[in-house]
Amino acid sequence: MENRSFVLRGDICWSDRQKKLHCAQDAYLVCENGRCAGVFDALPQGYAALPLIDHRGKLVIPGMADLHIHAPQYAFRGLGMDLELLDWLQQYAFPEEAKYNDLEYAKAAYRVFADNLRRSATTRISAFATVHLDATVLLMELLEEAGIAGYVGKVNMDREAPDELREPDAAHSAALTVEWLQAVKDKCTSIRPILTPRFLPSCSDALLEKLQEIRKGWALPVQSHLSENPGEVAWVAELFPKAAFYGDGYDRYGFFGKDAKTVMAHCVYCTEEEMQRMQDNGVFVAHCPASNMNLSSGIAPIRRFLERGIRVGLGSDVAGGESESIFRAISDAIQVSKLYWRYVDSAAAPLSFEEAFYLATLGGGEFFGDVGSFLPGYAFDAVVLEDAPLNPLNTLSLPQRLERAVYLEADGKYLREKYVDGKRVV
Amino acid sequence: MENRSFVLRGDICWSDRQKKLHCAQDAYLVCENGRCAGVFDALPQGYAALPLIDHRGKLVIPGMADLHIHAPQYAFRGLGMDLELLDWLQQYAFPEEAKYNDLEYAKAAYRVFADNLRRSATTRISAFATVHLDATVLLMELLEEAGIAGYVGKVNMDREAPDELREPDAAHSAALTVEWLQAVKDKCTSIRPILTPRFLPSCSDALLEKLQEIRKGWALPVQSHLSENPGEVAWVAELFPKAAFYGDGYDRYGFFGKDAKTVMAHCVYCTEEEMQRMQDNGVFVAHCPASNMNLSSGIAPIRRFLERGIRVGLGSDVAGGESESIFRAISDAIQVSKLYWRYVDSAAAPLSFEEAFYLATLGGGEFFGDVGSFLPGYAFDAVVLEDAPLNPLNTLSLPQRLERAVYLEADGKYLREKYVDGKRVV
Repeated sequence: MENRSFVLRGDICWSDRQKKLHCAQDAYLVCENGRCAGVFDALPQGYAALPLIDHRGKLVIPGMADLHIHAPQYAFRGLGMDLELLDWLQQYAFPEEAKYNDLEYAKAAYRVFADNLRRSATTRISAFATVHLDATVLLMELLEEAGIAGYVGKVNMDREAPDELREPDAAHSAALTVEWLQAVKDKCTSIRPILTPRFLPSCSDALLEKLQEIRKGWALPVQSHLSENPGEVAWVAELFPKAAFYGDGYDRYGFFGKDAKTVMAHCVYCTEEEMQRMQDNGVFVAHCPASNMNLSSGIAPIRRFLERGIRVGLGSDVAGGESESIFRAISDAIQVSKLYWRYVDSAAAPLSFEEAFYLATLGGGEFFGDVGSFLPGYAFDAVVLEDAPLNPLNTLSLPQRLERAVYLEADGKYLREKYVDGKRVV
Repeated sequence: MENRSFVLRGDICWSDRQKKLHCAQDAYLVCENGRCAGVFDALPQGYAALPLIDHRGKLVIPGMADLHIHAPQYAFRGLGMDLELLDWLQQYAFPEEAKYNDLEYAKAAYRVFADNLRRSATTRISAFATVHLDATVLLMELLEEAGIAGYVGKVNMDREAPDELREPDAAHSAALTVEWLQAVKDKCTSIRPILTPRFLPSCSDALLEKLQEIRKGWALPVQSHLSENPGEVAWVAELFPKAAFYGDGYDRYGFFGKDAKTVMAHCVYCTEEEMQRMQDNGVFVAHCPASNMNLSSGIAPIRRFLERGIRVGLGSDVAGGESESIFRAISDAIQVSKLYWRYVDSAAAPLSFEEAFYLATLGGGEFFGDVGSFLPGYAFDAVVLEDAPLNPLNTLSLPQRLERAVYLEADGKYLREKYVDGKRVV
């Protein structure tokens, strides 16, 4: 195993748990056995013997956490953007996902996905695969090879999907899920399984019952979609008349934070009651601003979530979102929060850059454990950006350099190194 | 002079005046003496002797028109995004613009601007410079060298600006404007002067009077800002109590379309009365969706403008917008139109991709004459994109390839050639 203890010297920025941005110019970031030992203005004597990598003049920041991404949809990102959610699922998402029954297609497509993700600033993801066992195992292996960490879920759906994609019944879906869990049990270490009922409309009560048993038996975290679109919310109310609200439908089966670590994507139309339950249960929100614009869903009330202490991270939601860049998600989140303030709720102050950067790193990172910051003890997930070409004229402060690098999506062109758990992957 | 008659063979997309998108796979686009002769499925005999450039498999589209960009603000794009318009002007825009009194600084900064613009898909711009004569002439020369066509304006402002930027009085501002017009009269051919009163609050009545005389004498087009932000609109009402509405303030001096070709940036808060005047007078709208988000201004009612037959193009509004990419402005325009539909006016259908592509090309191009399409007789402004790397898996239709190239901003990485008036500039 390579040496996972070393020091990076550079211009270092990170957030703390109070969402505050810290910046240290020409400082030392120490990695000890894959974990952060801290940021120091002068290198402490105790670390003087570690290998020193000189990145003076470059930005060193935590890796980005993507709390919601659909791996099989990467192949059609940036297409069909004139449709709303339910039509878009029928015309684009489902037909594409059906192709992953073919392992050769899956191999070609997931390789592109994993390779592009490797070259982005993203270090942790919570990803949806498809219903297919073999393709899902393959995706996990490819992501692991690409050095990405996090969760991948085989999707469960036994209704309200086209025949070629729908699992025939609850028993079949559950059995395949167990088979998948057994297949990856000893296989992947940095990419772990996550239970993934697609969303309430695509799961029968019988399937939800069975998945609940699996969740308990395997102690799995959970990911799904919540209150994304008015049409979808109304449909859920029809399908689950017993549920007091959308999230209550999940909660009845233990998929809403109380019994398992849970992340819910979108959360655009959460009622006060739903927010209260999320707060009580510790549900994470995956805020996907680009997707919520593209599919005409709306703008999630992020300020309200933050005021309640609900934990929020960012999601690219490829291919509802056109780009896998979490840098882009940061500027999108700020931009839509300004429109939310302007048009929906003038009491909801727009997100500051500092806050949105926090969401992209520590906010979402916490879903994966002690991840997303350079606080001592945190996983050493870091990216190094050579941002000097963006700043040929004026001397900028470190926070200004960071803001510009994010707004101009400097991860695409100027990423020079990337570390996950102290392992160099770019 | 180089040969400006030739043929491009490739996959060609363009809009017509009915906003309809036309796509011709493996077709021929003919340039004769710098103007389009048309698109042909088979090359007509009459053009068989022209040089043929083989771009089979690549996208060939009209160049993008940027109807609103501040050249001196390029140096601080992507900074200070947590501020609203009037604070942002005081803290970022004005201090930066003051630097252009120093010709050496201007040379360094404008060179970066012109070079980056050259490598983008933009072929025509309507740009603000600063109040400074020498720097403005220099900008025009650099843009001309970079092969960009369009307009540049020396800014006029004799009040409500910091001392180091404000022109001392109306007479001085007017005299300097005439001096500038004389300086560039025989100098630049593809970059022409445009009268540029910064916005109503920064111009005294006396200055507006004098500029009106200059406009008449020199037969100049006009560019300015209109109804961008509620605070600004209220301020204008205070400063110009005689004006019935913001645009009426311009109209009283002949700066609102009736007497001169005019483009107004933003137009977020136009009243019915203002829209009616714009329609009657033929004012062009420069829609700047990114800037309107970044500065918390809001969303311009583009559907309403289009329904009235008001002419609309897109603007990057660097540095209110963080990017000079008009591809990005296309997807931004679509995204915010969906939020407008969702939150402001459910009768205003979101912009389709086809419509937004039209705005970016022919919609804005018309401000410059017969520009922005491949209709016969139009200026030969074209860009060639090698989009194959974006599509490694599935065979896409030509409209799909175009949509993806725009959403993924393929102009940044995959632009291969660019022509303006039939002259190759990249």
